[in-house]
Amino acid sequence: MLENIKKEVFSANIELFEKKLVVLTWGNVSQISENGLVVIKPSGVDYNKMTPDNMVVVDINGNSIEGNLKPSTDLATHLELYKAFPQIKGVCHTHSTYAAAFAQAGLPISQLGTTHSDYFYGDIPCTRDLTKAEVENDYETNTGKVIVETFKDRNISDIPACLVKSHGVFTWGNCAKNAVENAFVLEEIAKMNYLTLSINPAANLPEYILKKHYSRKHGELAYYGQNF
Amino acid sequence: MLENIKKEVFSANIELFEKKLVVLTWGNVSQISENGLVVIKPSGVDYNKMTPDNMVVVDINGNSIEGNLKPSTDLATHLELYKAFPQIKGVCHTHSTYAAAFAQAGLPISQLGTTHSDYFYGDIPCTRDLTKAEVENDYETNTGKVIVETFKDRNISDIPACLVKSHGVFTWGNCAKNAVENAFVLEEIAKMNYLTLSINPAANLPEYILKKHYSRKHGELAYYGQNF
Amino acid sequence: MLENIKKEVFSANIELFEKKLVVLTWGNVSQISENGLVVIKPSGVDYNKMTPDNMVVVDINGNSIEGNLKPSTDLATHLELYKAFPQIKGVCHTHSTYAAAFAQAGLPISQLGTTHSDYFYGDIPCTRDLTKAEVENDYETNTGKVIVETFKDRNISDIPACLVKSHGVFTWGNCAKNAVENAFVLEEIAKMNYLTLSINPAANLPEYILKKHYSRKHGELAYYGQNF
Amino acid sequence: MLENIKKEVFSANIELFEKKLVVLTWGNVSQISENGLVVIKPSGVDYNKMTPDNMVVVDINGNSIEGNLKPSTDLATHLELYKAFPQIKGVCHTHSTYAAAFAQAGLPISQLGTTHSDYFYGDIPCTRDLTKAEVENDYETNTGKVIVETFKDRNISDIPACLVKSHGVFTWGNCAKNAVENAFVLEEIAKMNYLTLSINPAANLPEYILKKHYSRKHGELAYYGQNF
Repeated sequence: MLENIKKEVFSANIELFEKKLVVLTWGNVSQISENGLVVIKPSGVDYNKMTPDNMVVVDINGNSIEGNLKPSTDLATHLELYKAFPQIKGVCHTHSTYAAAFAQAGLPISQLGTTHSDYFYGDIPCTRDLTKAEVENDYETNTGKVIVETFKDRNISDIPACLVKSHGVFTWGNCAKNAVENAFVLEEIAKMNYLTLSINPAANLPEYILKKHYSRKHGELAYYGQNF
Repeated sequence: MLENIKKEVFSANIELFEKKLVVLTWGNVSQISENGLVVIKPSGVDYNKMTPDNMVVVDINGNSIEGNLKPSTDLATHLELYKAFPQIKGVCHTHSTYAAAFAQAGLPISQLGTTHSDYFYGDIPCTRDLTKAEVENDYETNTGKVIVETFKDRNISDIPACLVKSHGVFTWGNCAKNAVENAFVLEEIAKMNYLTLSINPAANLPEYILKKHYSRKHGELAYYGQNF
Repeated sequence: MLENIKKEVFSANIELFEKKLVVLTWGNVSQISENGLVVIKPSGVDYNKMTPDNMVVVDINGNSIEGNLKPSTDLATHLELYKAFPQIKGVCHTHSTYAAAFAQAGLPISQLGTTHSDYFYGDIPCTRDLTKAEVENDYETNTGKVIVETFKDRNISDIPACLVKSHGVFTWGNCAKNAVENAFVLEEIAKMNYLTLSINPAANLPEYILKKHYSRKHGELAYYGQNF
Repeated sequence: MLENIKKEVFSANIELFEKKLVVLTWGNVSQISENGLVVIKPSGVDYNKMTPDNMVVVDINGNSIEGNLKPSTDLATHLELYKAFPQIKGVCHTHSTYAAAFAQAGLPISQLGTTHSDYFYGDIPCTRDLTKAEVENDYETNTGKVIVETFKDRNISDIPACLVKSHGVFTWGNCAKNAVENAFVLEEIAKMNYLTLSINPAANLPEYILKKHYSRKHGELAYYGQNF
């Protein structure tokens, strides 16, 4: 069942590990199928012991469909994102070092250069703190809800990433692999931002450069890459 | 004698090296057996020349039981920890870069995010300076005693790590391998803390998030990972 | 056609990747032939899937001469440099982390030590911001023009690198491989500068040391290396 | 002639490269024989193309004794150190990143922890700037002389390293390999110092801890390591 998606989710999880975006078991990737089933990494299983068959299949409400392992504890956050934004097909969660530092600082990763604007159209926001009640009841679901709230005035496709205050990173995309690529880019630009702001706290990017670079790679007028 | 523990201590020392928590011979790991014998790395031996047979066996007072190599010079610190806290079964000592920087700065690694609270329930403390007398007489024993003193109001199981002022790191756990894992996590969160405090010196973590994340992985209500 | 240059440009692009000066597809290298044809990396093609045959050949005005792949979107910037400075035979573009941070900060990489002066005779400048009009029309050509403008009072051979404000790095040299070497050195000294200015914002290099070190390696009186 | 020393100097140079203390050709190591001949790396030769036979042999005044390659341009600095301090048998020069940053900043690497005091008895000094005259005439010899001047009130054996202002690092020891080990330790503690001072500019090490740790590893009362 869903053998292809299991393989894709498995290899996206492995890529997360090989690109050093995650250590130990601090991350997870999922993908949603055309008929609304979600395939996700099992909870707390070492990356170097996992096989595609270990991937867990659940429905959109988290009910187990296949697999005898427990899904990632962050499953409910992934599900909230899939429910709120149908255009999202893959979700990735990491604690990558520089991005997590911005999340712990409660600061957005602001647009400071074209590396950023090749992938993200605007600042990558950081959520508010969850309240005590939100943490104590349905914590993982509420983590998803606060991301949705953060994006109520933003375009989820143009900025495929969110920092969760005091926690880490969620990214998304049109498949599991694409969500991992966005997590990789996020960590790179988080490091660049860290360095840039250290040497010039007033650094900023003119809006017209952001727009130009983003549209070189995205939308109808894109002219980057090949037309295969 | 204690062949299994020698292999475990050997491979925990190798893991310390392979995870880049130690360079040259700047670290050591030990484990205590059920009958109270301590197996530890020999002093000043290169990691890539060591074998399991080189591990040194001593009793709880440091008397040689087996092995013709001298034990790590830090042995007496390990012994103090085993004596004071029977629940500790493995001890690890490193000078890993970011954690050692906090130790040299005399600052705790404060709880700033969930990566921290998945493993440590509260700030990781830094000891006071040892006095001149404590350094000049029984230095390594007194290093252990000042860690014990630092934990007189803390739970040694909930915070399995301590920075020793101007020196480095001691971590512990339910076996040698677990102590090394805690040293690895400590270095990761030390780096995250360094970065976080650079961009937001006022960063902090609400207590209820600390509690939630710690209890996802520890204690009766833990729901992270598999129930094998 | 131009098989040798294609191989050189291919291997210079691969070297850029292996020296970690570029991740994903964030960089490109070109070389100009004796008869004025430019060989450049194709746009958006993964480094580990590229072959020498994929290199694209264009004339100095960017007209396609050979190859069925689109050239790098940054081609027009390379062409402006070849047109303005006939002594340049290779051009390299990267977003290497530390150098890109200085570009995002809008700051030059100032001469602070002999590592710098072994390769660059003076500060490595950062361009002004491009105007809205320059970005919206012929952006890549204007990126080249603003580099040329930045060098109107500088010697393009003595300082073979320029930071482009909010963007990244262009370097050049007497061939593609030499341009990549300059990009590599630039990233190393950008990191050294970052660290140096963090601990001593007033750091500087006496002019006579700059002159001495540069002339050890460059010009008639050079005495570094072998006389093969 | 001197085949064994050539092999030792060759492998010490290779170790310098493999430990990432040098990139491109930015470093060199030498050793002096019992009868006062100095074996040193050739100038500007790639580490991955060198063989033991390429090592250059000169006398204490720099006259060529064997080898058809030119010696490192820094040879005269090595010779000054061998002349001034007969106990030195190996010398190493690098531009390793963190140590070079302190040299560019003109700051010593101060004693802040026991990692430092296990190897160096006190601050690692930085020379004064060379004067214009010293740079323009016999620059490399004068670089050696300013190191000797810096150590007129220090013990060359207890602090086997010196930062040269605006330039880089010279270390020494009882053989070429030992000089490289000191360069490796220097870079590690330079990084720790950088991080420590960032988070606590007032950090310092009590003198009695320095003395204790240094004497654990050095001198008659040393008890670290094995008595082979």
